[in-house]
Amino acid sequence: MKTIELTREMQKYSDSSRSKGKKIAFVPTMGYFHEGHIELMRQAKKMADCVVVSIYVNPTQFGPKEDLSRYPRDFDRDSERAKEVGVDVIFYPSNKEMYPEGYQTYVNVEDVTKNLCGLSRPGHFCGVTTVCAKLFNIVKPHIAVFGKKDYQQYVTIKRMVADLNMDLEIIGLPTVREADGLAMSSRNVYLKENERPSALTLIDSLRLAQKLYDQGERKASTIISQVEKFISQSPYTDIDYVKICDPETMRDIEKIRDSALIALAVKVAQTRLIDNHAFGELI
Amino acid sequence: MKTIELTREMQKYSDSSRSKGKKIAFVPTMGYFHEGHIELMRQAKKMADCVVVSIYVNPTQFGPKEDLSRYPRDFDRDSERAKEVGVDVIFYPSNKEMYPEGYQTYVNVEDVTKNLCGLSRPGHFCGVTTVCAKLFNIVKPHIAVFGKKDYQQYVTIKRMVADLNMDLEIIGLPTVREADGLAMSSRNVYLKENERPSALTLIDSLRLAQKLYDQGERKASTIISQVEKFISQSPYTDIDYVKICDPETMRDIEKIRDSALIALAVKVAQTRLIDNHAFGELI
Repeated sequence: MKTIELTREMQKYSDSSRSKGKKIAFVPTMGYFHEGHIELMRQAKKMADCVVVSIYVNPTQFGPKEDLSRYPRDFDRDSERAKEVGVDVIFYPSNKEMYPEGYQTYVNVEDVTKNLCGLSRPGHFCGVTTVCAKLFNIVKPHIAVFGKKDYQQYVTIKRMVADLNMDLEIIGLPTVREADGLAMSSRNVYLKENERPSALTLIDSLRLAQKLYDQGERKASTIISQVEKFISQSPYTDIDYVKICDPETMRDIEKIRDSALIALAVKVAQTRLIDNHAFGELI
Repeated sequence: MKTIELTREMQKYSDSSRSKGKKIAFVPTMGYFHEGHIELMRQAKKMADCVVVSIYVNPTQFGPKEDLSRYPRDFDRDSERAKEVGVDVIFYPSNKEMYPEGYQTYVNVEDVTKNLCGLSRPGHFCGVTTVCAKLFNIVKPHIAVFGKKDYQQYVTIKRMVADLNMDLEIIGLPTVREADGLAMSSRNVYLKENERPSALTLIDSLRLAQKLYDQGERKASTIISQVEKFISQSPYTDIDYVKICDPETMRDIEKIRDSALIALAVKVAQTRLIDNHAFGELI
């Protein structure tokens, strides 16, 4: 497994792989791998001849009061785990390599980023789309793999790729969960032991929403208020949002007709957690 | 010469050319070719194995009160002229192909677009960078060629390409002029015969600025006020801006030390014209 730190070198590597007819799969990450990341790499490995994983804690997607400086990092452990899965290249650029002095270009996907996390994290998705546009141009993959835990991110990236005619396929893979149901996230390490039961209200409330749906409830506001009530009963919880929306446009839905997504963001003590569920799917 | 209307087909053509080791040069245009366009194609032909020219009057770079609907078009004539120069492909997409329903992604270069035309044409450069990002992803060129008549556009595109790690080279070529010195522009057809002398105040005022520079003048405000005075003396002229700026950052300069650009935009009757000159170069 190779580690590449320079954009030019990464582009050369990908050009050379492409010229040999190899299919490149890309897994962009901020590192501190959990089983969710590893599963993305495993699936990427099945779909391509060459797997590139980027590890880059992208500053432009963090708000000024967010956890950029304390975001967990462990390159050596990440590198070991990627190697075990058979990753070919880790792309590991510095901030100076990604945003040199005078940097001033941003990619913005307007509509699908307006709701949900776009409301509570202004600028977040612009940082995500900008760094992904850069990474796609550097890694030149045929496919890029994202986890559906960050569902709005997945939809936003898909939209950017279609709108800007980027010639690659975006693949979304199901959320990987801990044994107790908590969605895997690098931020789970922030949780203290006594906060864990409160963190589980996210998955439990999604199950509650599915149960209401199974019982025939289709009014979004009824499901949302029950979910909010359920979460609020647990200590340490502070709801950012509970939304039922169209899974393509990310717009709020009043009445569930066809496909619909319930998405939530909850602060558990100091840790902001997100989760989501498509009605009708297994949970 | 081939004409391609679909993005997917264009991408396939370029993939195939690239896989044969061919170097692709790209000339993005809004059509209605003049000698400036033709010269870009000729130079592109010298630098590559395959020349792709796009003809697309991009609606997102026109303001609501600008000349989108009356912008001159003549595909058949353009096609003939491109064929004569040896262009390999004309990419000629529809609006529906470029901006299908639900389109919502924009690329913005922040700093270099703030001054000059960015002041008088809000949103213009965002439209330019967005369509160029799209076209670069569709045509997949090794090099793209732009005229320096639109100097700020050239600098903006260069900046976008560097910032977003697009793997292509942007080449700027000198302004091509009519025999009387007027910078070639598709918009020159709007000029009536009696407005022509006023249109020539642009090039004449640039020559005046160079003369003042040659006489030792380095204070931008002095040169600017003389240029403004000169242009204002002609009928039909309405100055949008006269600026002396750094040719990389596009920021105003007070005192000329190293390289500096004088750029101007003047409305002559109904026609908005622009021109520019780098101090020290021949004019």
